[in-house]
Amino acid sequence: MKPQIKRANEFDLIARHFAPLAQNFPGALGLLDDAAIISAREGSQFVITTDTLVAGIHFREVDNPDVVASRLLGCNLSDLAAMGSDPFAFVLSASWPQHIAEDWIQHFATELGKIAQKYKIFLIGGDTVATPGPITLSITAFGFVPLEEALTRRGAAPGDRLFVSGTLGDSALGLIALENNIKFISKSDRDYLINRFQKPEPRLELGQALRCIASATIDVSDGLMQDLGHIANASNILLEVNASKLPVSAEAKRVFLAEPNLESCALSGGDDYELAFTVPQSKLKKLKNVKTKLDVAITEIGWVCEGNGIVTIRDAFGCLVKPKYGGYQHF
Amino acid sequence: MKPQIKRANEFDLIARHFAPLAQNFPGALGLLDDAAIISAREGSQFVITTDTLVAGIHFREVDNPDVVASRLLGCNLSDLAAMGSDPFAFVLSASWPQHIAEDWIQHFATELGKIAQKYKIFLIGGDTVATPGPITLSITAFGFVPLEEALTRRGAAPGDRLFVSGTLGDSALGLIALENNIKFISKSDRDYLINRFQKPEPRLELGQALRCIASATIDVSDGLMQDLGHIANASNILLEVNASKLPVSAEAKRVFLAEPNLESCALSGGDDYELAFTVPQSKLKKLKNVKTKLDVAITEIGWVCEGNGIVTIRDAFGCLVKPKYGGYQHF
Repeated sequence: MKPQIKRANEFDLIARHFAPLAQNFPGALGLLDDAAIISAREGSQFVITTDTLVAGIHFREVDNPDVVASRLLGCNLSDLAAMGSDPFAFVLSASWPQHIAEDWIQHFATELGKIAQKYKIFLIGGDTVATPGPITLSITAFGFVPLEEALTRRGAAPGDRLFVSGTLGDSALGLIALENNIKFISKSDRDYLINRFQKPEPRLELGQALRCIASATIDVSDGLMQDLGHIANASNILLEVNASKLPVSAEAKRVFLAEPNLESCALSGGDDYELAFTVPQSKLKKLKNVKTKLDVAITEIGWVCEGNGIVTIRDAFGCLVKPKYGGYQHF
Repeated sequence: MKPQIKRANEFDLIARHFAPLAQNFPGALGLLDDAAIISAREGSQFVITTDTLVAGIHFREVDNPDVVASRLLGCNLSDLAAMGSDPFAFVLSASWPQHIAEDWIQHFATELGKIAQKYKIFLIGGDTVATPGPITLSITAFGFVPLEEALTRRGAAPGDRLFVSGTLGDSALGLIALENNIKFISKSDRDYLINRFQKPEPRLELGQALRCIASATIDVSDGLMQDLGHIANASNILLEVNASKLPVSAEAKRVFLAEPNLESCALSGGDDYELAFTVPQSKLKKLKNVKTKLDVAITEIGWVCEGNGIVTIRDAFGCLVKPKYGGYQHF
């Protein structure tokens, strides 16, 4: 980071760094008005989600601004993916400490713009304030979903099968690697895992493809165990997970071989932003088509039973497993 | 405030204090899902605004939580009023310091609920995180507005007249009174002014009534001078303000008589949440009807000329006035 440069006032900051992200969305009014205007899309509903990152809690003060931008927008888009929606816009509330270099803000905005362009979404409003505390960044993101087709956590029913996309535990290992707490790891494995943590890829296409197929969906943000708990609760069922089936990357496998104490990352590590979802047996064929069409790894990891908001984990021999640590709790 | 009590985890906090504010809005999914779902209203667009308050910057650590709730929701609703929209929902992102008493959160949520009930709006989502910094509260609020009828800052044209609702400077004086920096003031004047600061009343009805009447509108949040500057800029015109016409409450007048150095509050004091707006001559009759129907004070304070984003202030004799201090700048 460069030393602190003379800071512009709020309106200059917005005009210089954030207005470019709004310029192709007329309802953003150039970020110059009291509010933004968005129009409905026929036959669609809106989906709205909010996520906040605080320096010192959700990221480190030393993290690069592009990593912060990527994780902030990523976790919001992942929530929209979990609802089966198609994102189109977001607002940003940024609280900046007085000492921050404008450089930091510029890099943050540039990366936000790159990701926005990739997903064809626009910044349409927000607020920029000063804080005596740490950098605090909050995004509220908006998506469209066809009428009555939003995926929620509520619809899982006994007999449904449980699936998860991609691989689990990579991001948690990436964070541990970043803090140099993995002793035996190759440079390429380290880079891969850190990248999974720093540049999450929300499963938007998959979420959209799961509309009318999945009975309940969630994104794995706080750790599989904890997130499945939300489905179990909201659907009022029991989820049986076969721990031996959890999909793990080759990179993570090599770490687990060298340091078996890290294996719990697959079950309880956060920030993977994969989708976990249940599918009724009648829709399994459709799911197979999705898998082929999108070329995304989808692994069956368990099933839904009658129950009361519980998740049980069994090993390959059917014995109950107690995970070594739970998912992320904010307090 | 009671001493700190054992803090619940994030999900308990939400369930206990915030879920009740969501219970009559089905798309909020009980605040239990990844995102909220909202449906379009035929012939309407959505209006979206965001405002953030940080302890130590926008409110004092010692302020009561009900005052913070009132000001936070008030400034958001005021933005929706300035767009001529009809609010229906909001999301809250709250960053709580570890040491905060749950008591504080409870009172905050209770007041938020009271205001939400008053305006028939619902909490539909948000995020709750921990912070090593000050309390940071961000609301993104949503309103409906009939298609193409949203009021913006852009439409003022030469010949239009300039108006403001209610009275100006009360809130700035209220804040000064709260800090015991007004020497000569009666208890009832003090109470009135402090209440204006602490419990803003967004001009929602007026904003809605101004649709198809006002050519440009803004809410007075950062001080009349600065906020009119935004209309002048966005509409690319010159605004001439007659300072002697500024509406001032009887309470503020008594303060100005005793302490003339505070007079600039009317021109530059923030947080009044009145609406300032321009009206073409052809719509003046309609404006008169609004005034009668709503029983709200509306004062003509100036006019629109050809120009380039400038606001000029003249006294009763037509001499240029230089305000003693500008509106609130966040940095």
